[in-house]
Amino acid sequence: MLNIAVLGCGRIGRMHAENIAKHPRANLAGVFDVYEPAAIEIAAKLGVTRFETAQALFASIRVDAVLIATSTPTHADYIEQAVAAKKPMLCEKPIDLSLDRVDACAKAISGTDVPIMLGFVRRFDPGHRAVRKAIAAGKIGNLHQVTITSRDPGLAPEAYIAESGGIFRDMTIHDFDMARFILGEEVTDVTAVGSRLVAPDLMTKYDDYDTVVVTMVTASGKQAVITNSRRATYGYDQRVEALGDLGMAVSENRRIDNMTLHTETFTAQGAPLQNFFIDRYAEAFAAEINSFVDAVEKGEAPEVGFDDGRKALLLAEAALRSLAERRTVNVSEVG
Amino acid sequence: MLNIAVLGCGRIGRMHAENIAKHPRANLAGVFDVYEPAAIEIAAKLGVTRFETAQALFASIRVDAVLIATSTPTHADYIEQAVAAKKPMLCEKPIDLSLDRVDACAKAISGTDVPIMLGFVRRFDPGHRAVRKAIAAGKIGNLHQVTITSRDPGLAPEAYIAESGGIFRDMTIHDFDMARFILGEEVTDVTAVGSRLVAPDLMTKYDDYDTVVVTMVTASGKQAVITNSRRATYGYDQRVEALGDLGMAVSENRRIDNMTLHTETFTAQGAPLQNFFIDRYAEAFAAEINSFVDAVEKGEAPEVGFDDGRKALLLAEAALRSLAERRTVNVSEVG
Amino acid sequence: MLNIAVLGCGRIGRMHAENIAKHPRANLAGVFDVYEPAAIEIAAKLGVTRFETAQALFASIRVDAVLIATSTPTHADYIEQAVAAKKPMLCEKPIDLSLDRVDACAKAISGTDVPIMLGFVRRFDPGHRAVRKAIAAGKIGNLHQVTITSRDPGLAPEAYIAESGGIFRDMTIHDFDMARFILGEEVTDVTAVGSRLVAPDLMTKYDDYDTVVVTMVTASGKQAVITNSRRATYGYDQRVEALGDLGMAVSENRRIDNMTLHTETFTAQGAPLQNFFIDRYAEAFAAEINSFVDAVEKGEAPEVGFDDGRKALLLAEAALRSLAERRTVNVSEVG
Amino acid sequence: MLNIAVLGCGRIGRMHAENIAKHPRANLAGVFDVYEPAAIEIAAKLGVTRFETAQALFASIRVDAVLIATSTPTHADYIEQAVAAKKPMLCEKPIDLSLDRVDACAKAISGTDVPIMLGFVRRFDPGHRAVRKAIAAGKIGNLHQVTITSRDPGLAPEAYIAESGGIFRDMTIHDFDMARFILGEEVTDVTAVGSRLVAPDLMTKYDDYDTVVVTMVTASGKQAVITNSRRATYGYDQRVEALGDLGMAVSENRRIDNMTLHTETFTAQGAPLQNFFIDRYAEAFAAEINSFVDAVEKGEAPEVGFDDGRKALLLAEAALRSLAERRTVNVSEVG
Repeated sequence: MLNIAVLGCGRIGRMHAENIAKHPRANLAGVFDVYEPAAIEIAAKLGVTRFETAQALFASIRVDAVLIATSTPTHADYIEQAVAAKKPMLCEKPIDLSLDRVDACAKAISGTDVPIMLGFVRRFDPGHRAVRKAIAAGKIGNLHQVTITSRDPGLAPEAYIAESGGIFRDMTIHDFDMARFILGEEVTDVTAVGSRLVAPDLMTKYDDYDTVVVTMVTASGKQAVITNSRRATYGYDQRVEALGDLGMAVSENRRIDNMTLHTETFTAQGAPLQNFFIDRYAEAFAAEINSFVDAVEKGEAPEVGFDDGRKALLLAEAALRSLAERRTVNVSEVG
Repeated sequence: MLNIAVLGCGRIGRMHAENIAKHPRANLAGVFDVYEPAAIEIAAKLGVTRFETAQALFASIRVDAVLIATSTPTHADYIEQAVAAKKPMLCEKPIDLSLDRVDACAKAISGTDVPIMLGFVRRFDPGHRAVRKAIAAGKIGNLHQVTITSRDPGLAPEAYIAESGGIFRDMTIHDFDMARFILGEEVTDVTAVGSRLVAPDLMTKYDDYDTVVVTMVTASGKQAVITNSRRATYGYDQRVEALGDLGMAVSENRRIDNMTLHTETFTAQGAPLQNFFIDRYAEAFAAEINSFVDAVEKGEAPEVGFDDGRKALLLAEAALRSLAERRTVNVSEVG
Repeated sequence: MLNIAVLGCGRIGRMHAENIAKHPRANLAGVFDVYEPAAIEIAAKLGVTRFETAQALFASIRVDAVLIATSTPTHADYIEQAVAAKKPMLCEKPIDLSLDRVDACAKAISGTDVPIMLGFVRRFDPGHRAVRKAIAAGKIGNLHQVTITSRDPGLAPEAYIAESGGIFRDMTIHDFDMARFILGEEVTDVTAVGSRLVAPDLMTKYDDYDTVVVTMVTASGKQAVITNSRRATYGYDQRVEALGDLGMAVSENRRIDNMTLHTETFTAQGAPLQNFFIDRYAEAFAAEINSFVDAVEKGEAPEVGFDDGRKALLLAEAALRSLAERRTVNVSEVG
Repeated sequence: MLNIAVLGCGRIGRMHAENIAKHPRANLAGVFDVYEPAAIEIAAKLGVTRFETAQALFASIRVDAVLIATSTPTHADYIEQAVAAKKPMLCEKPIDLSLDRVDACAKAISGTDVPIMLGFVRRFDPGHRAVRKAIAAGKIGNLHQVTITSRDPGLAPEAYIAESGGIFRDMTIHDFDMARFILGEEVTDVTAVGSRLVAPDLMTKYDDYDTVVVTMVTASGKQAVITNSRRATYGYDQRVEALGDLGMAVSENRRIDNMTLHTETFTAQGAPLQNFFIDRYAEAFAAEINSFVDAVEKGEAPEVGFDDGRKALLLAEAALRSLAERRTVNVSEVG
């Protein structure tokens, strides 16, 4: 059994804690949150230790590994502390909003053999993953074109937008990682356009965009397109489509339930899509924990590493520059 | 080129005439209708002869074959006349509402080698046909259970109901033929239940039913279930499903268009189903003509024959008796 | 918090235990199984008490309510013991395979106000439930015809079949309850046919059937059809369809994942259906616990009661007689 | 009745001729083709006049209007001749591959009131059109993002590619028009990327691309993305998706038939998509004729005019320049 402690008892941290508790080869070794009531509640419900400080958690011999689900600005620090404490870690994305901080963190931990897994959870979605597997199995032949549709059900509050780092670093970052995951090779060229349609004033205030299209090309000419919007009233729109010279694989959306209604004016009306990531990626979050436990148990490199986090951020930087300069940007220009 | 004349210039007759005119190996040799204006209009539009009498049509040397799309009570007579005139024929279903008249007709034409094709058009629907082909190709293994959903978009007018012969002879007759087509072997046992839910008073008046379920079993134990209703507000519901020991084949419904709508309260809302048989089975009607032309050209027996018409009627008789006597009826009891 | 203890630590019991542990308003108060290793394992993993006897469990003051997930022949006894101990209970279906034993149990507990909930879990499936809600909300108008497709992914082992009580009492029982749930009124007439197609020798040996169709009618003429098979290679086929005079509501199947594949020879190929009830009804099992906790907390009658268990069994008895006597059976004839 | 003559008796011309013959308010007034056998065959089959020259056709008083379905390089000339002869015309796209020739033609016919309709047939597809109607009816609110997936089932022969004018002018041209149709306002910015993945050598030889992504933005910030490929093994992939602030409308693909297959390894496997435009847009071609007849009868401007043909070509020019210069191009730069 792998004893995993969780830092951060917000909505995501709590879900991770429950998934760890349920996992057949893991135990929840305790929780920590700077906001004590959150940690107290979850510790009581799940019958585990509450650590009073992150330091105590990292120092505990009853903790084999850690899951970092705290606020973004703390990620890089906790990664460094977990490495120092030799605790394998699964850290929520992003490493940091600043490429400089990411590079500093990389330098600080360089040479470590402590496993670091980054929480690009969508890689573990059964549908998206099945697309990747279909490609790997040759089911669609040589990959030509990837289309990623990724739209939030609604605009986040202003406080969130203000701290988000902008749509490319906050939202598209998942799709940049998904593009890399599906393409199976590195992106060289990035072209982006952005509009302010959902909340024009707010976007102008923060020099941000709510509706974007990003086109990427790899050295061999494979293409990937991401369409993002901060507003999809019908639910959390999460689709991945891969075209190859032998066929196409598509990861389709998921609805709240599987009932359809048929009347005089319409047929097959279904429920809205699952509303947001906690529901939509519930299976993926559980599979992510499983992958982490597997990697640590087997002493293998985690499936998604520190460098994947950095590369997704690089693509965000390239998209920002492309949009600003109205031109295709080579990724080597940004880092 | 096969020169085919059409008897009956109502909605179905007109459609058949257009399909014959378009067919690459057939010509429309003329039309006839007891109601002259209908025949005059279609003859003018399609630039063909109008025959003043059915006799003239049957006698014409410019007519190689005939299509009978007149009212039901005339079918058996015209079949006999076409046989006498040695004109291969495609006759709309049913042969007659009376089993006695059907048997008399069979006797009258017995021994003839004039090709007689019966218009069970659904056998030519690409989807239903693909189910049959999948079974024949072994794609679902040994057939176990067939489910036929068949619902009219709305109740026909009282005048139609009054003359229809009842739901089993009028509406289920198509599904009885479909069951035989998909099962690939003869039905031995029939069990039926019927309700008056759509138009209780009207159904009581004509001792008819608007909502029925018919269960059939073959000698080898294969099962088929038909669910009929005279009212499906969402359109003409026409589905066929076949379960075998290796899988299932399903012929799905068809919509007016392929647009789906997704909003805050629903996803994937589609248009209603194609509303009735002229639209729903448009491709099937054209394929039926093609099958008839093929059979006549090649001197082969048509795909659907006189006996298929009789057997479907037998199942209707068995269903009527089952419903009346609240018991499973062996088909041999009725004919 | 409601402290619930679980009797039975097999696959279903374990799942229930995990769902209780996760529930925000319930605690897992301990487990019991006559097979000690199963109870020991789950008690250790979930950090709870293992009761050495059912008696100890029923007697414990730390147990507010019980969940009975033991083998079928013990259900009625445990129900009686739970009533005696005044512990509200959620009992897995069926109450018993014998109508006599069910009636004896009913007599033994008659007059009790201890809440008894029966585990007809499908009522809590989001899709099936949405069909019921759509009907209740008038979305499809007056209900006319219900179609329940219910097929197991594969034949159970002979040992299971031998003890099952036959397909109607073991498998169709769920569909009988679903028919009652969707119809919203009692069934009066039952007609059934049965075949031996999946495993003819085995079925003959146990005088059982593997492929059945059951048609039911209510006093007002509403119809319900159940098609069952012990073998659906494509997965656990679980669909419910309700036709009303204003439209149709359908609870569709669920697949293992949402990936579709498109190649030169086909499009939209999806994964097999979720394979069996633990996966297919995962959300339903969790919702069932929630409904039970709600009912006990609020002091309300559980949504599915003892009498629902008895009535489903009555329909099974009627189906058996119908099949044997080749006739429609009125439910009053069997109990 | 509107008497329409058809120039060009190839596959498209023949289909148009049959649609005219079937139309209730149109007559086929004759056909012409420089390749006489084609014209002879179709004239015989449909029982109409064959014109020996285009001049004779344009001069005939029995011809009220013309349909131009000849090879692309003749379009502009025939448009000018039809205008001179005062015959309303429906001309297949494109007007010409050269923007200069298009502009010369525009000048030559400037000021004419002879109706000119351009054959952007996809605007008449029931699904695509329903998307436009849903937008116009406010069903999805303010339009934000349009996604057009448009892929040919397979690479055209080299001879075709050599004369095609390149993918943007030949294939994407339809999607440029569709983008304008759906967006409902003019595109200002065009960004394109192109790859050679399907047939790298052939594409290099003709300085062409087989896999492209084009992103467009309007003055108000609305976005449209086109993904094109010359190779979609699963059939002719033709989808249009529109996201607005109240929802999404999608025009889905169409299959050869509606049968689905379900086995141990997969579910819901459907037939390939309709293979190419003659089948996929069969209803659209018929509706296009109807729209033309309507416009001429009512003396109204046709739904798709000469200027729509020119504007789609402009977008193709902008895409070419964007790809060459690796930057976003403003449409005003190219014309």
